[in-house]
Parts: sequence; C-alpha cells; structure tokens
Amino acid sequence: MQIDSVLFLHPGMMGVSLAAACGADALWASEGRSEDTVVRARAGGLSDVGSFTDGLAAASCVVSICPPGAAEAMAEQVAGAGFDGVYVDANAISPATARRVAGHFTAYVDGSVIGPPASKPGTTRLYLSGEHASPVAQLWEGSAVDARVIEGGPGAASALKMAYASWTKIGSAMALAIRSLAAAEGVDEALVEEWNLSQPGMVARSERAAAGTGPKAWRFVGEMHQIADAFAAAGLPAGFAEAGAEVYEHLAPLKGTDAPGLDEVLELLGRAT
Amino acid sequence: MQIDSVLFLHPGMMGVSLAAACGADALWASEGRSEDTVVRARAGGLSDVGSFTDGLAAASCVVSICPPGAAEAMAEQVAGAGFDGVYVDANAISPATARRVAGHFTAYVDGSVIGPPASKPGTTRLYLSGEHASPVAQLWEGSAVDARVIEGGPGAASALKMAYASWTKIGSAMALAIRSLAAAEGVDEALVEEWNLSQPGMVARSERAAAGTGPKAWRFVGEMHQIADAFAAAGLPAGFAEAGAEVYEHLAPLKGTDAPGLDEVLELLGRAT
Repeated sequence: MQIDSVLFLHPGMMGVSLAAACGADALWASEGRSEDTVVRARAGGLSDVGSFTDGLAAASCVVSICPPGAAEAMAEQVAGAGFDGVYVDANAISPATARRVAGHFTAYVDGSVIGPPASKPGTTRLYLSGEHASPVAQLWEGSAVDARVIEGGPGAASALKMAYASWTKIGSAMALAIRSLAAAEGVDEALVEEWNLSQPGMVARSERAAAGTGPKAWRFVGEMHQIADAFAAAGLPAGFAEAGAEVYEHLAPLKGTDAPGLDEVLELLGRAT
Repeated sequence: MQIDSVLFLHPGMMGVSLAAACGADALWASEGRSEDTVVRARAGGLSDVGSFTDGLAAASCVVSICPPGAAEAMAEQVAGAGFDGVYVDANAISPATARRVAGHFTAYVDGSVIGPPASKPGTTRLYLSGEHASPVAQLWEGSAVDARVIEGGPGAASALKMAYASWTKIGSAMALAIRSLAAAEGVDEALVEEWNLSQPGMVARSERAAAGTGPKAWRFVGEMHQIADAFAAAGLPAGFAEAGAEVYEHLAPLKGTDAPGLDEVLELLGRAT
C-alpha cells in the first residue's frame, strides 16, 4: 500500500502538529474553517486543497482529528462522499465507536494520540491498530511523532486512549472537585497542608489541572462520555467519567482563556475559595 | 475540662493504635467482641471494662472508631444510654453525618484519622474540630499520634477526611478499574508501557491498590457512600465516589486476604488479565 498524500480533517493544534510531522503530502481543506485555523495550517506547512470534496479526491489517506463528539459524523461524511482510501480515526473515542466508524470503510486504521501537540521528539505517541496500521505508522518515521502499532485490531488504539485519559483527565476533574469540596467546607488550607505532608505533588497537580484543563474543558466533555461508554461496555462503573463530564461541563465557559487560576475554576464549580 | 479516661468503641487496628498512644486511661468493652480483638486490645495495653454500660459509666470521654456505616447507630446507642461526657467521632463520615451525630451530645468533637495505624511518630494525624477539640488533642501530646485541631466546628475534621480520602481511595478504585478496562480490551501491556513512559509510578500505584485496598474494600464501600453524600451536599458530582463504591463492592470478598495480586482483583472486577 502506497500512501503519498494525507488529508487532515479538521486540524486544530494537534492535527497541524501531526500533519507537519507527516512524511507524505499533508493536505487540508480550508473551506468553512476559521481564520485562526488558516494561520495555524499555513504555519505547519499544510497544503490547502480548498474544499472537502477536492481534498478527498486528492488524498489516498484521511486522518480524522476532531472533537470526540464529531468523530462519527465526520466518518459518515467521508464515507458518504465515496472515499475509498485508508481512513484513520485518531480521535479520543471508545472502542465501540471506533468499531462503528470502521464499518464505514474497507481500509480502516484505529488511532489515538497520547501527549501534547508534537513539537519535539519524545513527547507524543500516535498509537495505531488494525490491518493497515504499519504503512500509516511509516508516514511518521524519523519525525517528532512516535507512531506505534499495537495489537488488537480496530478498537485497540482507542481503548488505550480511553484507559490512559481516564487517569489523567478524570483525575484532573476529581482533583478540582476535591479542592472545591474542601473550599466549600472551609478546610482547603488544612487539605493543602495534609497533601503537602503525605501526597507530594498533589497541590501542584490540582493547580495545574485548573490551568491546563480549564481552556479545554468544553471538548473534554465529549471525551468523558466516550470513556463512560468504554467502561460500561466492559462491565465497569461509568460513574467516574460521568462525574468528570459534569465537572468539565461547568468549566466549559473557560474556552479560549489562558491558564485560568484555581479560584476561577472553583467559582465555576459553585464555590469560591 | 478534665479527661482522665477514654472509652474506645470499638477498637480495630486503628482504634487500638489510638488507644495505645492516648495519655489518659484507655478503656474498652470486650463484651460481644471477637477473640482477635481481645488479643489486639490486650497487646495495646487497653483496660477491659467488660460491658458497654460499665465502660460508659467509667469514662469521661468516648472515642467512636468503627466502620463509617455504623457511626450514627453507635452515637445513638451511646447517647441513648445517657452518656454526658465528651463524644469524639473519629470515623470517616460526611460533614452532614458528623453534624447529625453532634446533635446527640452536649460536648461533641469531630475527628478523623489520616494515615495508617500509628506505630511510630510522623505517619498518622488525628484531626479534631469543634469547641472541645483542644483538651482532646492534648490526650495525644508527645505520642506517635499527631493530634491537630482545625478550624470550622463539627464537620470540619470529617470534611477534611472526605476530601483526602477522595483522592487516595477513589483514585485507587479508578486505577483498578482502568487496569480492568485495559485487560478487557487487550491493551494492558500497551497501557503499562505508556504509563512507564509518561506517568511514572502509576503501574506501581495500580498494583499497590490491589494489595492495599483489596482486603479493606468491604469497609471502603461505606466510606465511598459518605464521600458521595459530601460531594452532593456541596453541589459537586457524587459519581466519582459512587463508582468507587461499585468497585469496592466487587472486591468485598477479599476481606481477610493478605495482599491480593492484581490478577485476583481484575478477576473480581469481571476480567482476567
């Protein structure tokens, strides 16, 4: 299988960083996208094909990288347009969603990204699973993106992402909810003191959670729902992720802010420090 | 206020360690308790007063230290017997439960323990709040138990415990559920590899969670329900703790085992590695 051009739909910061590191021609379709996205895509060296339809005609591979809640609609749109190349879904979706997406394509590769947008080697893994995973992984050989093929067919790369993001993102939501509980009960100072004594790093983690997850909370809601589905499908409690979704819903207004403080987050969670 | 004798109801490992470190006469009532408890209380140097009623008559202070689900019934039993000394509830209960317990007594001190049973200084804090907290704290001066008075009246010490145990105990339940999800989806090896790369300590934490929480899971269920109540009362998602309760319910059969392995835990959670 020869992949010489990849259409990225629809690249945000992460998508542009994957595209910039990709060995094949990296295409994108600017039609209907925001000015911010245009600037970012240009900076990443992506070739603008104009429309979605022209992009599909030009590409032998599509990489879908979008908010989790949009992943299935995106796949249906691409399949509906008659695309018959390799479709890579790199989104944070449940294994069941990944398998439904797979059903639309003859050549499907399940993908997921762990780490921040890749600017230097060693920070970001692109996990890939399924029959055609190897030729897709080769597109990133020698780049800042560490593309890794894992066993398990469609669903495996997504399952890994769900398991991984459970700890980091539900954990962050829980840390913020805990600080909020402590503030509501007037024991935040005592909690900070006890954490500093017996849980080194927790105070910093909860503060980082405010700054780091606040601006992205709006799109973490969908990821939480995907994780809840993944847990439920495995006979495990969905409540961890559902509670995480509730926290991130409250923080959704922080979209577009820059590193909000813990106070701001606690206020949105209903409690001032 | 002079406290010269303290009745501990009903001391397990933690209760005996508090009693052994207490500066006043430490009493307990062996009537109806197990042989294991008798051995433990004797080793801790507690004086056996025989019956509950004789214990209340002899003590100027009662420390309740029992599974969270039994805390209110214990308080009602003590109040019903006409006890008019200082009542210390040291259990892992929600602030609302603590305040209900407080309503039964004229002299109530809210308490909570963070850390393992105290065998050496520096490991275990006994938090105390409420009007009579200081004379109670003095009972442990210079002992292995670090008794600390915090602001906030009845409910504060309990709130601190709820906030603290959320991270440690819900976190452990979540770590086990995550390993279970990964095993169910066949990506446990990949998760372990990714955790070793980007979440140092997580593999060990999940394994410690199996060994450490498995045998105590049966009593963590009640604590999870108390935490769920505390979150709900503060307008925060109860789902984190409710999901934790579900995990610990599955692990309740591990009561009495010694450091169960991760495999054993995953099997109880419905999945073999």
